[in-house]
Amino acid sequence: MTQIYTGDGKGKTTAAIGLAMRAAGHGLRSRIIQFMKGETTSGEIEALREISAIDIERVGANFIAAKQTDANAVAASLRPALDAAGSALVAHYDLVILDEIITAVSLGVLPESEVLRLIEARDPKTELILTGRGASQAVIDAADLVTEMRDIKHPYDKGIHARAGIEF
Amino acid sequence: MTQIYTGDGKGKTTAAIGLAMRAAGHGLRSRIIQFMKGETTSGEIEALREISAIDIERVGANFIAAKQTDANAVAASLRPALDAAGSALVAHYDLVILDEIITAVSLGVLPESEVLRLIEARDPKTELILTGRGASQAVIDAADLVTEMRDIKHPYDKGIHARAGIEF
Repeated sequence: MTQIYTGDGKGKTTAAIGLAMRAAGHGLRSRIIQFMKGETTSGEIEALREISAIDIERVGANFIAAKQTDANAVAASLRPALDAAGSALVAHYDLVILDEIITAVSLGVLPESEVLRLIEARDPKTELILTGRGASQAVIDAADLVTEMRDIKHPYDKGIHARAGIEF
Repeated sequence: MTQIYTGDGKGKTTAAIGLAMRAAGHGLRSRIIQFMKGETTSGEIEALREISAIDIERVGANFIAAKQTDANAVAASLRPALDAAGSALVAHYDLVILDEIITAVSLGVLPESEVLRLIEARDPKTELILTGRGASQAVIDAADLVTEMRDIKHPYDKGIHARAGIEF
């Protein structure tokens, strides 16, 4: 099945990570490729490296670069992420999570056709999970389960900013 | 801050688990108490036990019992979960996750006032995360960040049922 977590609310990446943890507890193997987060590390990466059934990596430029840098350079930086995604889909992982790949499309640095091609390439036994804001109708149509995370109430207008360990 | 993940869509429990993983990677300690899932085990519990910074347990009756059993018996079974939640909030955990506690209120087996009391009891340094369907306005008002998971597309009408490692 292909699952999508989209929308402007919190919980898209964390839901995907929670799915990988749940799968690990059932002896299933997951491959997580994080698009658009830069080649840095984060809390989730450090903790997930303790779990042998989960392979995680970050590939390509980050969100800020996508807004400040030449779009072609950002697009080129995502090419290895796409190659890694294609390889993961044929490498017998039980779950393949492409985190923020939808955001890359909505920012205009990844063609929608590449995402459709990956959904098409999915082995029926592999669970494919895509996350990111702004899923297009064509991508929604190609997926089986689509969940929107919606902000009902958000504290940023109260002056609370992103905190290490909670927001990233 | 108090965060709520509510709505009918997927990803509420998994988002909470992903938050605990992210926090663990930053050296923060989490306590997860799962209400309404029965005293069974699951994939997520097995995998999370590998992470020393995360303490997880299930307490009380499950969803099915809540519909089939005397409501007073279910309510009584949740009493230890409430006690555990109250203890966690004063035990210097960085994150306290009360999974499905909102569902227990919307099923009528837990008074809304108990949830409001826990939100009130939160130490300012503790991140409190509540999940479950049907958050009431009073609970939303008492929280800082509220995200709704909404079904945009769901495969159950295609005859796909809950799968071990993916849905539970």
